Amino acid sequence: MDTLNIAKIGGNIVNNREQLELFLDEFMGLDHPKVLVHGGGSSASDLCQKLDIPIRMKDGRRITDGPALDVAVMVYAGLINKNIVAKLQGRSADSLGLSGADLNIIPAQKRSRTEIDYGFVGDIKAEFINTYFLRRLLDEQIIPVISAITHDNNGQLLNTNADTIASTLAVALCEAYEVELTYCFEKNGVMRDLNDDESLIDLLTKKAFTSLKAEDVINDGMIPKLDTAFEALSQDVQNVHIKHAKNLSNQTGTELSL
Amino acid sequence: MDTLNIAKIGGNIVNNREQLELFLDEFMGLDHPKVLVHGGGSSASDLCQKLDIPIRMKDGRRITDGPALDVAVMVYAGLINKNIVAKLQGRSADSLGLSGADLNIIPAQKRSRTEIDYGFVGDIKAEFINTYFLRRLLDEQIIPVISAITHDNNGQLLNTNADTIASTLAVALCEAYEVELTYCFEKNGVMRDLNDDESLIDLLTKKAFTSLKAEDVINDGMIPKLDTAFEALSQDVQNVHIKHAKNLSNQTGTELSL
Repeated sequence: MDTLNIAKIGGNIVNNREQLELFLDEFMGLDHPKVLVHGGGSSASDLCQKLDIPIRMKDGRRITDGPALDVAVMVYAGLINKNIVAKLQGRSADSLGLSGADLNIIPAQKRSRTEIDYGFVGDIKAEFINTYFLRRLLDEQIIPVISAITHDNNGQLLNTNADTIASTLAVALCEAYEVELTYCFEKNGVMRDLNDDESLIDLLTKKAFTSLKAEDVINDGMIPKLDTAFEALSQDVQNVHIKHAKNLSNQTGTELSL
Repeated sequence: MDTLNIAKIGGNIVNNREQLELFLDEFMGLDHPKVLVHGGGSSASDLCQKLDIPIRMKDGRRITDGPALDVAVMVYAGLINKNIVAKLQGRSADSLGLSGADLNIIPAQKRSRTEIDYGFVGDIKAEFINTYFLRRLLDEQIIPVISAITHDNNGQLLNTNADTIASTLAVALCEAYEVELTYCFEKNGVMRDLNDDESLIDLLTKKAFTSLKAEDVINDGMIPKLDTAFEALSQDVQNVHIKHAKNLSNQTGTELSL
């Protein structure tokens, strides 16, 4: 089977022009086939603020009301997605920006209201991901650039966590490829001490992750990211790494292991 | 040759939820293959206003500085484009939202600075339109939904007039299809008197257009729209109509003739 590289970048890379250009240069160095998944992070929050749209969070997850959804769609599926596509085309890399609604790539359902109503947030229907069309794009060395917006097949767009999109796509594409999934961000990987650049954990096992969570060495936003990453690994994704965006094509970073 | 329907909708339809739904119902009634091109009109201006970005116009054309371009990309390629795609998917019509950068569908060049600098405005390189990929989508009954954003193949997105995109695509696709191009808006067609609904011009010849312009019966934004429409007709587009969005699938409207 061919190896498929899936790289996910978050808001801190996307919103820093220099970091984004560096990342895209690194990404160009990866062999085809490859997929880019991006979030948007603070840029949507910034726009909400400018538009006086209140930002509500619960357990690190954004609550998405109608106006906040519009902003997410504008920023993620519009501004960020199309700028990345243009920058890849500028590097002579043919690419296609997609939301989950386009070609019905990522169907989802609005998260059911439990103790809290997350609003227009979509939980992916993993079994219905349109891998057929993705594979055809990849066969032609076209790079799908996927934003964290999904839809419910009933006309409604939904906001979805970009880490989850990356891992769900990785799992869905495992039938056809050996998938290498890399989460890129602004740190060298999973750190024992965020203030010590030398404290990088090269190899993180599921067991060590459980311990480090308990010791509060790994905390906050890194926990759901690693939960999602280990989930991908447990579902046949070949390799999962957490890396600095500038290290995408080299070995520096954290490799996960079950 | 197959008949290809290209429908263009402008801001007044796009920004009115009820009108948009009516239009999409009409659009569903057209046979495949079909393409939807959309502008965004006042919604980008509204967002500029909310963000205190000054809107500058010259001869009915927007001057696009950096912040205004970002807004155009967010609104046209993001909010409007993805909502239309989701609504079509909700009608079980497979569709793919595209900017000109995606798959390099519409390469353009930044308009050269003459007496006035229009900013990040793109003039389409018509000979480089990626008809190959558009045709493949159309062969599979996938509906391309195209926003009025292009790019310069050097990483820069550009704002482009949606009427021009529709006519340039229509001309480019004439080699493969008999193209029916319809400009849909909120009037029944070209009117002799905007205040008289009975004054619809059923058939407008190029000669009559020239006279009616001279008499100031046809004026303002209708002139560049009709210039663009007649240009398409003179370059082998089979039929060009100007219609109310709700009449897309019936005969009411203005037919152009050379």
